[in-house]
Amino acid sequence: MPLIIIFVECGIELIPQNLEKFSSIRRKLSSQNYSTLILDNALHHSAMRILKNFEKRGRPDIAHICLLNALGSILNKKGYLKIYIHTINNRIFEINPVIRIAKNYNRFKGLMGKLLIDGAIKSENEYLISQFEGDLEKLISSFEKPEVLLFSRKGKQIKNFNDLFNNDIDKNYIAIIGGFQKGSFSKEIMKLSENLVSISKYPLEAWIVTCKIISFYEIFNKIE
Amino acid sequence: MPLIIIFVECGIELIPQNLEKFSSIRRKLSSQNYSTLILDNALHHSAMRILKNFEKRGRPDIAHICLLNALGSILNKKGYLKIYIHTINNRIFEINPVIRIAKNYNRFKGLMGKLLIDGAIKSENEYLISQFEGDLEKLISSFEKPEVLLFSRKGKQIKNFNDLFNNDIDKNYIAIIGGFQKGSFSKEIMKLSENLVSISKYPLEAWIVTCKIISFYEIFNKIE
Repeated sequence: MPLIIIFVECGIELIPQNLEKFSSIRRKLSSQNYSTLILDNALHHSAMRILKNFEKRGRPDIAHICLLNALGSILNKKGYLKIYIHTINNRIFEINPVIRIAKNYNRFKGLMGKLLIDGAIKSENEYLISQFEGDLEKLISSFEKPEVLLFSRKGKQIKNFNDLFNNDIDKNYIAIIGGFQKGSFSKEIMKLSENLVSISKYPLEAWIVTCKIISFYEIFNKIE
Repeated sequence: MPLIIIFVECGIELIPQNLEKFSSIRRKLSSQNYSTLILDNALHHSAMRILKNFEKRGRPDIAHICLLNALGSILNKKGYLKIYIHTINNRIFEINPVIRIAKNYNRFKGLMGKLLIDGAIKSENEYLISQFEGDLEKLISSFEKPEVLLFSRKGKQIKNFNDLFNNDIDKNYIAIIGGFQKGSFSKEIMKLSENLVSISKYPLEAWIVTCKIISFYEIFNKIE
């Protein structure tokens, strides 16, 4: 069975209209470049403070590093990983495991700008990123026997990684990782499962959690 | 004992003078911003083709992701990791484990620009990045009982990660990882050790190798 990873509440969005009153942002929006359409905390920090929930927003860098770690893994190369991105605005995207995602951050932002506007990224023959029509509950219930694990520092600490993925090979393990730097899962995310688990007593960044879970899964399933 | 990781032949350098004849590059150099001084394949691809060894150069993005994975690890947070960066121009930098390195790529490039010009990055009280005066052989011999492992797809394949770090707790394990996308270690790097090892039959990116080795070391030494 593949491991399913959903990066939730990722701070990937187009610059909201109510920020267009800032001259620095208006100037960038006129440049006709997809990457400049993406909200980015490193560029728009002061303007962003007027936004609700601003701490989770404007962080495409986090999803970028998480995706690089997930897509480059042996688990993915062997076809045992399914990856989804859920954004702060509740859009869900499925990532084709064969995608060669831009290593360069600015190009990645351009890709995300195009994705949010067009709703998909296609190559000649197939979708590289496609939108899932529905919410997270619908996505989860689309898998048979889903076992949802919410990874959070506030969860029950796992001492042995064998505890994470027990022996039921029929289960579809769904790892939910927050694609943000600060803060906790929203109420909507918390409703998805009662399995709130922590893999360390240290606060770990989303991409580190991604690495660790994938490594655990590879070792547990002898994928090498 | 801590694990020592040296990222070698990283494509981090200032834009070479012989590229200044390209008008696109001259314009950027005049902007007085550290990040624009750094050679970046994503921006300077066509101009770079005149450079010797260009495939390994202009790739600060690779070192960036490797550093984010290494610095964020539990191993580092517990003080069991020492990290060095060796550049394509044979400069060696020691990274203080407490550094909070920029998550944003463009800011990271700015940091690297300042580092290459000033030779160090300091906070009020301490060095966050400092230059090691000497070559890789001198660095390696500065550790007692060094056991140098060169990670390469061309190496002997390790089947069990316990084979990587055997029971000799007196040894200083030094993992050497190439900070480049394509190509093999240079002759100078290959001379450093006869232990050429591969952790997968797949070609893995440098940041994935970083994650895997750190995970192995954490599990082997029960660091959690």
